[in-house]
Amino acid sequence: MSPEEFRRHGKQVIDWIADYLAGIESYPVMSQVKPGEIRRALPPEPPEHGEPFEDVLADLDRVLLPGITHWQHPGFFAYYPSNASGPAILGDLLSSGLGVQGMLWVTSPACTELETVVVDWLAGLLGLPDHFRTDARGGGVIQDSASSACLVALLAALHRAGGGRFATHGADRPYTLYVSSQTHSSLEKAARITGLGSARVRVVDVDPRTLAMDPGHLRALLDQDVAAGAVPAMVCATVGTTSTAAIDPVAALGEICRERGIWLHVDAAYAGVAAICPEFRWVNDGVADHADSYSTNPHKWLLTNFDCTVLWTADRAPLLGALSILPEFLINAATSSGSVIDYRDWQVSLGRRFRALKLWSVIRWYGAEGLRAHIRKGVGLAQDLASWIAADPGFEVHEPHPLGLVCFRPRWPGLTGAAADQATTRLMELLNAGGELYMTHTRIDGRVVLRMAIGGVATERRHVEQAWERIRREHAALSAPGH
Amino acid sequence: MSPEEFRRHGKQVIDWIADYLAGIESYPVMSQVKPGEIRRALPPEPPEHGEPFEDVLADLDRVLLPGITHWQHPGFFAYYPSNASGPAILGDLLSSGLGVQGMLWVTSPACTELETVVVDWLAGLLGLPDHFRTDARGGGVIQDSASSACLVALLAALHRAGGGRFATHGADRPYTLYVSSQTHSSLEKAARITGLGSARVRVVDVDPRTLAMDPGHLRALLDQDVAAGAVPAMVCATVGTTSTAAIDPVAALGEICRERGIWLHVDAAYAGVAAICPEFRWVNDGVADHADSYSTNPHKWLLTNFDCTVLWTADRAPLLGALSILPEFLINAATSSGSVIDYRDWQVSLGRRFRALKLWSVIRWYGAEGLRAHIRKGVGLAQDLASWIAADPGFEVHEPHPLGLVCFRPRWPGLTGAAADQATTRLMELLNAGGELYMTHTRIDGRVVLRMAIGGVATERRHVEQAWERIRREHAALSAPGH
Repeated sequence: MSPEEFRRHGKQVIDWIADYLAGIESYPVMSQVKPGEIRRALPPEPPEHGEPFEDVLADLDRVLLPGITHWQHPGFFAYYPSNASGPAILGDLLSSGLGVQGMLWVTSPACTELETVVVDWLAGLLGLPDHFRTDARGGGVIQDSASSACLVALLAALHRAGGGRFATHGADRPYTLYVSSQTHSSLEKAARITGLGSARVRVVDVDPRTLAMDPGHLRALLDQDVAAGAVPAMVCATVGTTSTAAIDPVAALGEICRERGIWLHVDAAYAGVAAICPEFRWVNDGVADHADSYSTNPHKWLLTNFDCTVLWTADRAPLLGALSILPEFLINAATSSGSVIDYRDWQVSLGRRFRALKLWSVIRWYGAEGLRAHIRKGVGLAQDLASWIAADPGFEVHEPHPLGLVCFRPRWPGLTGAAADQATTRLMELLNAGGELYMTHTRIDGRVVLRMAIGGVATERRHVEQAWERIRREHAALSAPGH
Repeated sequence: MSPEEFRRHGKQVIDWIADYLAGIESYPVMSQVKPGEIRRALPPEPPEHGEPFEDVLADLDRVLLPGITHWQHPGFFAYYPSNASGPAILGDLLSSGLGVQGMLWVTSPACTELETVVVDWLAGLLGLPDHFRTDARGGGVIQDSASSACLVALLAALHRAGGGRFATHGADRPYTLYVSSQTHSSLEKAARITGLGSARVRVVDVDPRTLAMDPGHLRALLDQDVAAGAVPAMVCATVGTTSTAAIDPVAALGEICRERGIWLHVDAAYAGVAAICPEFRWVNDGVADHADSYSTNPHKWLLTNFDCTVLWTADRAPLLGALSILPEFLINAATSSGSVIDYRDWQVSLGRRFRALKLWSVIRWYGAEGLRAHIRKGVGLAQDLASWIAADPGFEVHEPHPLGLVCFRPRWPGLTGAAADQATTRLMELLNAGGELYMTHTRIDGRVVLRMAIGGVATERRHVEQAWERIRREHAALSAPGH
């Protein structure tokens, strides 16, 4: 494709996306296709001869769109938001167009140095401590996902816990990892990947009301494990759990970690970015004094399209110790001088995209005030929704809900336990099949609970109002006698 | 940014990229900036108020471009090519614009099903065995990089070697991994990440001429290790090593693996895609009969921008066994039915982009014949270059060089050993500082050798001719008496 063909087709694609975003409310939020339907509509063999780009776009409309669940739809309330704003998409497009590899500083110095600048910017915007900055002993890096950030943090923790032994001798000591029942599953996955095995993941109790990790139980488990010969490597505290946005007591957990020299990672994938607003900065209480590493996802709630997780560490040495390997083909004068960062040593993969461009583009387009306004909009709408639910005798809302996620349960007169859960699931499936909104569920204390996560770019008050009206209406219909 | 603002700025970005690609030869291939130069030119604090998108583009030109090493420049011969063709960029743009998460089938069925279709297409195009297809026991998946593909393959191998024990009990047995001195460093990194530790990476000898792994030595090492109590988990054979594009004898290595029930992974990151041409299909000899897993990078030589590695496995069960975890918040009817693929279970991270769009777009735009023509162009130019070098008494060329990479060494009359290596390095640095071309080095038998990898989208005969002329001229100048 020549540059001129690219210019022509590129503008077609831009128009396609602009039209898509402008008309996104015309689609059902959640795809309604059956398994195999999309695949069967595609040819089983690739074309021998090249095809016009218009055919690709036509098949996107005809074949693929029915199989898309529209994460950018204003009625998307499932999981957590995964924002793709205009400047993010364009920053990502520039990254694709430049097509540079950022594995080493020398393979594109701007790719590395812009990343250093924007992760330092973001640390400042979130009020994270100065020792997370690159000019101190720490530093930030963009990872593809929170899963990878937690994996990399665990590797650094194991490196430190083993006195550097992990890189050479691996998991030859009984290293243990501490999570709660509410911690993201990627931590258990990281324990499996790093050769600890799921049996070395120790599950700390949570407060039954807030679902936050119980420091007293952490202390008891550590005592017990150490007495049995374990080598505690890392505690993972969560700021905004995946299930209910619960916030672990980082300061109290951090005290325990500090006493015993255990690495504290703070997984703030969802909620960390809320700290861009001074009134929500409390979510990170304890981080400055206690976190060895910290990660949050601009690709969830901060207008930057996937993939963009930022991981900071208070001391980059264990991270580099865990992950640096320098084969001959990567040796170069800049690396040898010790005066540059090679971010390949901060991640699992060697290769890396120029992801800083999209975060840079987002921060510049919105400015700090625009980013704050976006977070405040989501929190405000969620608080309104929670108040409507709390005021309705047909529902009960889970407390607390300080940010953009509201968990709630319909009441089903006459139904208890599994029967009530089935009714709740049925309500959710009916609502999702309706196409106006998409929500997912979790369980609290064993009971099925509905989740509405508010924070989409396009989500306005009317969308939340409509969703709530629809939920009430369907619930009333399902609750009607004789239904 | 509203859809209409996106439309306007999007077209600016498309024009910027089209102009960039049309004028790419006006830039020095390798960035000439000094460490810190880009960073110092950027503001230390983020903007409080949003800025016009035009300012972002202006700073891209003014501040960032001098710090870009232009991987799409026709004079880029360093490392391996990292192609970003027009249709790939546009496929990626569509992915960013749709902004869907493909972690589960249900979170966007088309994202999963298109991926299944294109990896099956590519298996067919490369002549890979039918048991790699999704409808058989195997299946393919797009990973971000070959590093991740090898890591995931190792996890599957460990799962099988431990009879499923690895996921629960981790690296509690003396598992070993077999590579050669030429194997990519990501394998050692994978051994570190999986808790084996680098001490459990066993290095098999290579044939001193071809640099291919020696099956006899593999057998001897395995005998010795097993006698010492080791549990061999995986052998990694390489099709096209990073250093010299050496090709390990997959069939002979595979026989040994089969006898002993050891997982054979074939890392064909660079060279695997050459098999799209029937005349180069021999690179994969032995794969059909012996490989438990196989990976190659469309993001290197097959016109698809980073990140796009495809990993296939002959049996997906150990992969899923190693990586599946199903927390409550991901439970959904489609997954429970067992009738869909959830690709999150095939990779490290939970989240995933819609990367299939770019590979689909590339295959449709070029068609099989266009992809073959691209590979043939690179090989043809490399063979011409190798013949020119071989005919010049001032140089010696490393044999064999069947694909797009040519390794060669200038002769330095009167200099031997380290002195000759220094002269070679100096020649390379002078050439790279000239801006017309960019190449990197490796070592063969301890001696510094220059590498020219040909396969860029924009690279034509004249670029290779100019590069060779420049190399000869600088070499002659450095070799002149009294220099």
